[in-house]
Amino acid sequence: MITVEEARALLFDLVAPLPAETTQLSEASGRILAKDVEATRDQPPFAASSMDGYAVKSTEVELHAMFKVVGEAAAGQRFDGTVGPGQAVRIFTGAPVPDGADFVVIQEDVDRRGDLITITDGPGAKANIRPAGVDFTIGARISAPRLLRPEDVALMAAMNIASVPVTRKPVVALISTGNELVMPGEMPGPDQIIASNTFGLKALLEQNGAHVRVLPIAQDTVTSLETAFDLAQGADLVVTIGGASVGEYDLVADVSEGVGLERSFYKIRMRPGKPLMAGRLGDAAMVGLPGNPVSAMVCGYLFLVPMVRRMLRIDQVLPPLQRARLIAPLAENGGREHYMRAIVNHDGIRACDNQDSALLSVLAQANALLVRQPHDPARTTGDEVTYLPIQ
Amino acid sequence: MITVEEARALLFDLVAPLPAETTQLSEASGRILAKDVEATRDQPPFAASSMDGYAVKSTEVELHAMFKVVGEAAAGQRFDGTVGPGQAVRIFTGAPVPDGADFVVIQEDVDRRGDLITITDGPGAKANIRPAGVDFTIGARISAPRLLRPEDVALMAAMNIASVPVTRKPVVALISTGNELVMPGEMPGPDQIIASNTFGLKALLEQNGAHVRVLPIAQDTVTSLETAFDLAQGADLVVTIGGASVGEYDLVADVSEGVGLERSFYKIRMRPGKPLMAGRLGDAAMVGLPGNPVSAMVCGYLFLVPMVRRMLRIDQVLPPLQRARLIAPLAENGGREHYMRAIVNHDGIRACDNQDSALLSVLAQANALLVRQPHDPARTTGDEVTYLPIQ
Repeated sequence: MITVEEARALLFDLVAPLPAETTQLSEASGRILAKDVEATRDQPPFAASSMDGYAVKSTEVELHAMFKVVGEAAAGQRFDGTVGPGQAVRIFTGAPVPDGADFVVIQEDVDRRGDLITITDGPGAKANIRPAGVDFTIGARISAPRLLRPEDVALMAAMNIASVPVTRKPVVALISTGNELVMPGEMPGPDQIIASNTFGLKALLEQNGAHVRVLPIAQDTVTSLETAFDLAQGADLVVTIGGASVGEYDLVADVSEGVGLERSFYKIRMRPGKPLMAGRLGDAAMVGLPGNPVSAMVCGYLFLVPMVRRMLRIDQVLPPLQRARLIAPLAENGGREHYMRAIVNHDGIRACDNQDSALLSVLAQANALLVRQPHDPARTTGDEVTYLPIQ
Repeated sequence: MITVEEARALLFDLVAPLPAETTQLSEASGRILAKDVEATRDQPPFAASSMDGYAVKSTEVELHAMFKVVGEAAAGQRFDGTVGPGQAVRIFTGAPVPDGADFVVIQEDVDRRGDLITITDGPGAKANIRPAGVDFTIGARISAPRLLRPEDVALMAAMNIASVPVTRKPVVALISTGNELVMPGEMPGPDQIIASNTFGLKALLEQNGAHVRVLPIAQDTVTSLETAFDLAQGADLVVTIGGASVGEYDLVADVSEGVGLERSFYKIRMRPGKPLMAGRLGDAAMVGLPGNPVSAMVCGYLFLVPMVRRMLRIDQVLPPLQRARLIAPLAENGGREHYMRAIVNHDGIRACDNQDSALLSVLAQANALLVRQPHDPARTTGDEVTYLPIQ
């Protein structure tokens, strides 16, 4: 069996950064910029007033100076003439500063009567003009890769970049396996339960930038599994859930090899989630997750999300591990790396009482996975431990 | 002028929590649960084996004990008979434990020859059975309001909750105003610039759970603005951008009152973003943002996101303020609360050099708003300051 770290490295060998596609600017937030983009213009494209006031020559600005107002410059509508000596142009925020003027006296500092203004308050040294290109100039670049935030979208809008090259979303096909499963909303038979893993994983992976296809539940037969693998074609990552253990009904390993899986590894020295297999299946990566719901979700955080982020070209494949102090002791850990469901708050961190990997009710209360190394000794209250946030 | 805190309180008076609507489980992640939901079944619905092995009577379990295998129980297909003395049933993970059995010997601990098994390793005390209802029982409740995470979606799936009552998304109508504006992808005239605020705000508000309608740019005329307000009907929150200052072309205040605005306040003692107005417009809240792009985005973080979250019934309307140490000094602050664009990293926090509220290039580099109180004295490197994260 291999470690979590080794498994992740092997999984990364199964995926590659995806190519770019073009999206509309209005849909670009949260996507990954795939190629550098450049401003197609200067911003502002002209020297612009930053205040409402009067555009004049700076050499003429002094207390009690008088000017004749000869025109008006509004945002979107410049004054076409030139400001001469003793002249002023009424100007509004964002308007082009007219030729001949290099100073804007704010309107609060003047007294206007008809076409005449007088400076009534000391106008100070600030010209209240934004030079052309002060925000950015043609060719200013936003470098890829970059997770695009709302601020980047606003900046690209100002740069007049209407179409944005972004990394294509990884397509993940999810296959739940097992005769015991029915979909939510159906009426389960007495021996059946509701498929939950695909729904949790779909939400988790979509939240991390994937496009998820939930395939029909595969029964525990060769034919049903083969059909599922066939339906998964075109995905970048095929994920089976359940059927990857050693029971006689665990057909995933056999069938996936039958349809061409080149296996990378089988089993990881971790809890929960030991039975996990992976390999290359044609053009796709394939991962077989254990069927216990908590194991599947934890493997989603530790392996699937990093694979998705790798395909998206995001450097930070996992959120950084955090540290907190225990507010309850921990028994010695066994021989496998353990990701314990835990609750962290201002007071510290506490592992949930029941670590059974079937308990979704416990997972839904947890907001952290407390990470323990193999054979980590017993820990007491106050000891510092590491955890992966899952909220 | 009022403070940021006072403004937010008045803005909250303009909005109310929105009613519930129903969404499909597969779309519920990231939404706010609006009503308590209850499990419609027990999980597991029967005592279930947690391992692959053999179901027997616990009183008969001891090293070297022999059993006759009389049947098989698989996940989804129980064994219909009863396990008698000296009998065992082959059982797989997730299968119902048959009547008469209360212990599962794992397959690694037995030697099987034909229909006979012998316990070859000490089976320990663990019965390897999950009791019925150990995860949850009928009526187990998820309490509203709650921001639904992937784990909650998995849990609701297991509870067979296929439709989920969630708070309706607030509908926000965004109106950019100004003759100088054209949309991205268009060819601006020599006096024009590209509308950027609506794109940045749309991304920000959608990221926070709103449904955003971007309306056509309103020209600086009464008719154009009236048309825009008319198009905004049906929105929960109408946001104008620009035209809220005191220039003669700033018609928003006049026109909004003409169409029925009951004004709540006008101007906040803050930078950037002083000219900000708000009120009640029919069934909607209305907020008039300043037109400078950075001001508009900062007001988005400080006011619009909290209003959206309030309508969604999210308790935490703002991310908690963080603390960091300055890695560069700050001059004394003026009389207004100041939200400075800043960059925070492991070394500390530094305000960006140019705080002009027109510079989107600076905002796109920032990942924090450094919060300064009115008349905050000059600060030196190493002083602790507060900031609002904006990444």
